[in-house]
Amino acid sequence: VTADSARRPRADAARNSERIQRAARQVWAEQGPDALLEEIARRAGVGIATLYRRFPDKAVLARAALDQSIAENLTPAVKQSLADPDPFRGLTTLVEAALELAAHDLNTLAAARSAGSITPEVDQPFYEALTQLARRANEAGLLRADLVPDDLPRIMAMLTATLWTMDPDSDGWRRYLALILDGLAPAAARTLPPAVALSKGSRPGEWLL
Amino acid sequence: VTADSARRPRADAARNSERIQRAARQVWAEQGPDALLEEIARRAGVGIATLYRRFPDKAVLARAALDQSIAENLTPAVKQSLADPDPFRGLTTLVEAALELAAHDLNTLAAARSAGSITPEVDQPFYEALTQLARRANEAGLLRADLVPDDLPRIMAMLTATLWTMDPDSDGWRRYLALILDGLAPAAARTLPPAVALSKGSRPGEWLL
Repeated sequence: VTADSARRPRADAARNSERIQRAARQVWAEQGPDALLEEIARRAGVGIATLYRRFPDKAVLARAALDQSIAENLTPAVKQSLADPDPFRGLTTLVEAALELAAHDLNTLAAARSAGSITPEVDQPFYEALTQLARRANEAGLLRADLVPDDLPRIMAMLTATLWTMDPDSDGWRRYLALILDGLAPAAARTLPPAVALSKGSRPGEWLL
Repeated sequence: VTADSARRPRADAARNSERIQRAARQVWAEQGPDALLEEIARRAGVGIATLYRRFPDKAVLARAALDQSIAENLTPAVKQSLADPDPFRGLTTLVEAALELAAHDLNTLAAARSAGSITPEVDQPFYEALTQLARRANEAGLLRADLVPDDLPRIMAMLTATLWTMDPDSDGWRRYLALILDGLAPAAARTLPPAVALSKGSRPGEWLL
């Protein structure tokens, strides 16, 4: 075989995988995180055997679908927000991107969570960027001085929790982000009680927790 | 039978029921919402047959246990907060009572939720009081003017979500209540995006949603 003909099937396989990941996100969004893999294969236009060859079980598929969503929706925002000269605006951009992802792919997050396929590196680049932006916003006096890094996942958990109270694909979460941002302003700050130790929760679909 | 001897077994039965409800709350808090009913009967010092005679299934028991917690921890706070001449302080007191209940009986809430035994009247008195206090605080200029009643269950959902990020029986949630209250202050208020329609979520353990 020539190099070219050997490359073609690999490219086809990659395209199939991408299509299956995208179909999984769509089907889960429409039908919930328990939708059948057969339906996902049908939507992707592949046989169920092809799906299982690429993704041996739901845990692998859910993680791949989540990784696709993160690569498309969050990774660019991480880079963009870190480059923003206004760290508070950068922080806002990044949180908005994360919530857009969570709103749009809420059931993919839930599927990945319940399949046990969310590992720390899923949200590590996001939290590293968020922590860095919060520190810079803090130093610039744009954020209340008593915020600590452990507050950030809790703020994300609070915002994600609002998604279950609305059409998840609406942008109704923006109202609660605005409320939280008002609470984070230095002008509003009254003394906060101390932050207790962060422990990872066990609920499906939290943004990262 | 005399009236007296007829009353005694009924009083015993009521005491047994109360003991079982309290044991359920304790066992769920310690072992999670999937703890065995046998363990609850053991903790209450009754046989499993007695438990099933009073509470034919887990849904009934979880609801009764939740009702007991509400009667003990929330109903008094509803009355007290409505009588407070300072409606913002009343609102704070009431939210604190609800979060103390959720923190302490988080798994009882989760058990009741997953058994499908939470009905609208469970949290109706709480929300009626909260809405009334918010309106009065609003009129007194103690709360941002653009808050709407549909925001209240979302604020509760946000605060409840923090419980899954900490030892639930800690009072670490107080830090996030303080953050939210700072965001609710008229001084902090920037214009909020509109509130989208409230829909009831399907996740276990939310405070009321």
